[in-house]
Amino acid sequence: MKPQIVTFLIKCPDQKGIIAKLTHFFYSEGFNIISSQQYTNTTSAKFFMRIRLAVDNSVLLSKEQLGESFSKLAEAYQITWSVDYGRKKQKVAIMVSHTSHNLYDLLHRHKEGKLNCDISMVVSNHEKLKPIAEMFGIPFYYKLVTRDTKEEQEKSLMELFDSASIDLIIMARYMQILSTGFIAHYENKIINIHHSFLPAFQGANPYKRAYERGVKIIGATAHYATEDLDEGPIIEQGVERVTHESTPTSLKKIGADIETLVLARAVNCHLNNQIIVDGNKAIVFPETGE
Amino acid sequence: MKPQIVTFLIKCPDQKGIIAKLTHFFYSEGFNIISSQQYTNTTSAKFFMRIRLAVDNSVLLSKEQLGESFSKLAEAYQITWSVDYGRKKQKVAIMVSHTSHNLYDLLHRHKEGKLNCDISMVVSNHEKLKPIAEMFGIPFYYKLVTRDTKEEQEKSLMELFDSASIDLIIMARYMQILSTGFIAHYENKIINIHHSFLPAFQGANPYKRAYERGVKIIGATAHYATEDLDEGPIIEQGVERVTHESTPTSLKKIGADIETLVLARAVNCHLNNQIIVDGNKAIVFPETGE
Amino acid sequence: MKPQIVTFLIKCPDQKGIIAKLTHFFYSEGFNIISSQQYTNTTSAKFFMRIRLAVDNSVLLSKEQLGESFSKLAEAYQITWSVDYGRKKQKVAIMVSHTSHNLYDLLHRHKEGKLNCDISMVVSNHEKLKPIAEMFGIPFYYKLVTRDTKEEQEKSLMELFDSASIDLIIMARYMQILSTGFIAHYENKIINIHHSFLPAFQGANPYKRAYERGVKIIGATAHYATEDLDEGPIIEQGVERVTHESTPTSLKKIGADIETLVLARAVNCHLNNQIIVDGNKAIVFPETGE
Amino acid sequence: MKPQIVTFLIKCPDQKGIIAKLTHFFYSEGFNIISSQQYTNTTSAKFFMRIRLAVDNSVLLSKEQLGESFSKLAEAYQITWSVDYGRKKQKVAIMVSHTSHNLYDLLHRHKEGKLNCDISMVVSNHEKLKPIAEMFGIPFYYKLVTRDTKEEQEKSLMELFDSASIDLIIMARYMQILSTGFIAHYENKIINIHHSFLPAFQGANPYKRAYERGVKIIGATAHYATEDLDEGPIIEQGVERVTHESTPTSLKKIGADIETLVLARAVNCHLNNQIIVDGNKAIVFPETGE
Repeated sequence: MKPQIVTFLIKCPDQKGIIAKLTHFFYSEGFNIISSQQYTNTTSAKFFMRIRLAVDNSVLLSKEQLGESFSKLAEAYQITWSVDYGRKKQKVAIMVSHTSHNLYDLLHRHKEGKLNCDISMVVSNHEKLKPIAEMFGIPFYYKLVTRDTKEEQEKSLMELFDSASIDLIIMARYMQILSTGFIAHYENKIINIHHSFLPAFQGANPYKRAYERGVKIIGATAHYATEDLDEGPIIEQGVERVTHESTPTSLKKIGADIETLVLARAVNCHLNNQIIVDGNKAIVFPETGE
Repeated sequence: MKPQIVTFLIKCPDQKGIIAKLTHFFYSEGFNIISSQQYTNTTSAKFFMRIRLAVDNSVLLSKEQLGESFSKLAEAYQITWSVDYGRKKQKVAIMVSHTSHNLYDLLHRHKEGKLNCDISMVVSNHEKLKPIAEMFGIPFYYKLVTRDTKEEQEKSLMELFDSASIDLIIMARYMQILSTGFIAHYENKIINIHHSFLPAFQGANPYKRAYERGVKIIGATAHYATEDLDEGPIIEQGVERVTHESTPTSLKKIGADIETLVLARAVNCHLNNQIIVDGNKAIVFPETGE
Repeated sequence: MKPQIVTFLIKCPDQKGIIAKLTHFFYSEGFNIISSQQYTNTTSAKFFMRIRLAVDNSVLLSKEQLGESFSKLAEAYQITWSVDYGRKKQKVAIMVSHTSHNLYDLLHRHKEGKLNCDISMVVSNHEKLKPIAEMFGIPFYYKLVTRDTKEEQEKSLMELFDSASIDLIIMARYMQILSTGFIAHYENKIINIHHSFLPAFQGANPYKRAYERGVKIIGATAHYATEDLDEGPIIEQGVERVTHESTPTSLKKIGADIETLVLARAVNCHLNNQIIVDGNKAIVFPETGE
Repeated sequence: MKPQIVTFLIKCPDQKGIIAKLTHFFYSEGFNIISSQQYTNTTSAKFFMRIRLAVDNSVLLSKEQLGESFSKLAEAYQITWSVDYGRKKQKVAIMVSHTSHNLYDLLHRHKEGKLNCDISMVVSNHEKLKPIAEMFGIPFYYKLVTRDTKEEQEKSLMELFDSASIDLIIMARYMQILSTGFIAHYENKIINIHHSFLPAFQGANPYKRAYERGVKIIGATAHYATEDLDEGPIIEQGVERVTHESTPTSLKKIGADIETLVLARAVNCHLNNQIIVDGNKAIVFPETGE
């Protein structure tokens, strides 16, 4: 049987001995540390850690006890933290509009068991992609939005997501701007894919603008959604070479492949608890080969 | 209305004035040359051309007349050629065994209209992937093969393919070696994906062997199937960086993404008539931005 | 003996039969066309061609005759053109300020015979890099510039370049903005390297800004200098992955390698007559394997 | 003043609490751990660590005391280890034959202060590259080798290297096979660059063979030299796309740029103590942004 794996994500002011203290805590609580990754930002003097623990039966500590016990340490060292006990999969909602490649890609990865999550629903402001959700047996919710109904639609979305205990929202080419309130409600829980190599070509029609600028490489960017459009912490980026022969249409086609890969990787990093957000930056620890 | 586009693929001994003569022929027949791509192999003194022609209504020449007319020129210059009149899509059969990522990827590209072909069938020596073909509404044929029935199975495959006028066979991780006779019957019409950066790790278990060798980059290769396993003309290759943390399992996962991209690109090049095979090499003209 | 190779770069309105007419012209003048590359921009209905001709002794046509003869054709088809008769190497001036990696790289490529040009001089507004020019035996000119002497300095630069018949100016991290007049005097003859993936991070301190934005990929861009800073036609771009561990200092180090490769490639394309500029875009034909 | 940085490279059987014990040791000795990187090979149950310590004046422990003190811990946990006290630069010898691009590149990086080492000498079996060493003011030793004098020449090389206390030998396209004895004498201290994407095209003429195979991507590999040619632990690899237009000559040119980058990166990783060799594999910890 695969052992249960507990993952802690830790952020605190840098301080002498912090690694020794943290690793000693987990060791003394009876855990086997299977990987420990750290990053120190020397400019801001902040310390970040992702630590993964294998839990075997001899560990008497219950989930609640561990949390309680770690809370005391956390207080002493001003630690902000989260923990994933590895007992249940995250619940994911995918938001789309007209474009289907990211949706297909995420659903087929999920079906193949390559995304460590449950996809609970696909939500769209259009009915166009409903058949795709149905092909994969995922509930589809049509949530029309107009200028006048935006507030109402977002309220309805929040109810839908919260009643289903959604842990992560993936904006897989959802072409509506979300309100500040909505985004604040799901801080660092909304991943968006932007079809350019940010910060180049923020905003609308990036492929058309890339064509007009005559760039020789195009890209895509997955980031957490924040109030300022396309300004959120970047999780992953990808690029591809293009030539003068490329047209806005062919750039779109080439770009679609970058978008799918970049979004899938970003989602994967999130689901594997590899990311700690610090201000407008995402610290993304590499996957470990456990 | 989109104009009909005729594509000629031409191979002949290099000779002075060949470009002028060929382009003049098409011009004088009343065609508008929308793109002309050439390659001269100076070592073998061979000339290769891909020429695309837009056909408008004023062209009186019928399809048969053009063929006949070009045949005379071809004879004079020892030209080997093929032509796609752009009137009907190629018919494609996909062969698979257990692995599903390439199948999903090709079927979803096809469904999105990104592969310029009709996928007529999925054929497998296992029943496992039948549900995927069904999801996408593509006929699935189960063709069991054992050591004793190999010859018979291949005969049955050939009947199936030939009766359906299949133009291209995609081996999307079909894990059976095809006989020389079978391959000869579909010369330059079978595209295979090999899950390594050929010629590294030819044969079985490339990811395990890549892990054991400790490479820092892995890859995938799409090639035409030939008698000698993994020795056929290479159409496309792709790579990705890996680290010491990678395990055979994670290499497989990373590799799956390379395989899907590489195979899709190779198939696309084939369907767009971008490829001329010369001996053990594939000349792949870049896509033009018409 | 290597045959002399003549390269024509051609730009004209797209018109039926243009390839046939052009190739027929060169063929009928007795040239062997060793490569012919075309690009048609269907949006602007413009046609571009790079054609390379091998000249053997039986060609009686003199250089002047060929030019004259082609001029007539050019007029008929509204062709803008340039020709390199392949008889003498282009003369190059390199401009630098403090940063040395591009200078080292260009000088060592030149010394190894990998850049098809004569580097006539290195010019700088600082004396710091003089020893490098001297190591490689290239004349170094120190041209101090202050706010008050800018006009005068540029005049002096122009005299220097023009008296030495400089064909190409490479701004290898020259950190002064050139005046509109200076740039107009050397239209499409100044190649600049910008240390970001344009249009991201135009202007000063791109690595610092890339760090602050938390990008996961950085890049460099080689382009022709135009009046609008960092807005000129892009010739070549390159990128490299970075992580949250990267600091402004390490980004600079990683970036230096991208800058050297990208600038060297762009210069190489220019010297091989692979580029036709069209408005704010550079059409860069791939190198042919003659 | 930049603080002195001590780097430990550690290898031992994996055991519960090993991270806690090691970090606690360094913490209790009064060091500030500025970065700690680990890797556990779960298949072989081996643990690897790179730990970097900042030393301030309050640390009374002398270099010898630290070593002695750590030795006891090492014995208890079966640790194999090395330490770099950061007090002096490593001494490097570069071996070359005819090819100059790697030599130029390493010497110019060294001159720019980008390689954390002293290059003590350039050694060659030919006199051709002497002027390059001289340009950069590095002593050049000509060590002719013939079939009959091989043993003698290697003995002379060893005397030269050992008398100069060489820490690292870089085979920057040195085209002689070294004897088993020579290699054993400098275990994990010789870095070689092979001009192919290993394990593809081991042995001679890789570019010619890549051309003949018609690959679409070429590469280069830096590895520690071992008895079996081209079989040593891979440190770094790089690749570049090529096309059917590529010739053996153009592949060589494209490859030269990959070779320089890959070798420079590998050397840099070695000099920064980022590498632990385990059998035929090199564990290469990423650079940390201290």
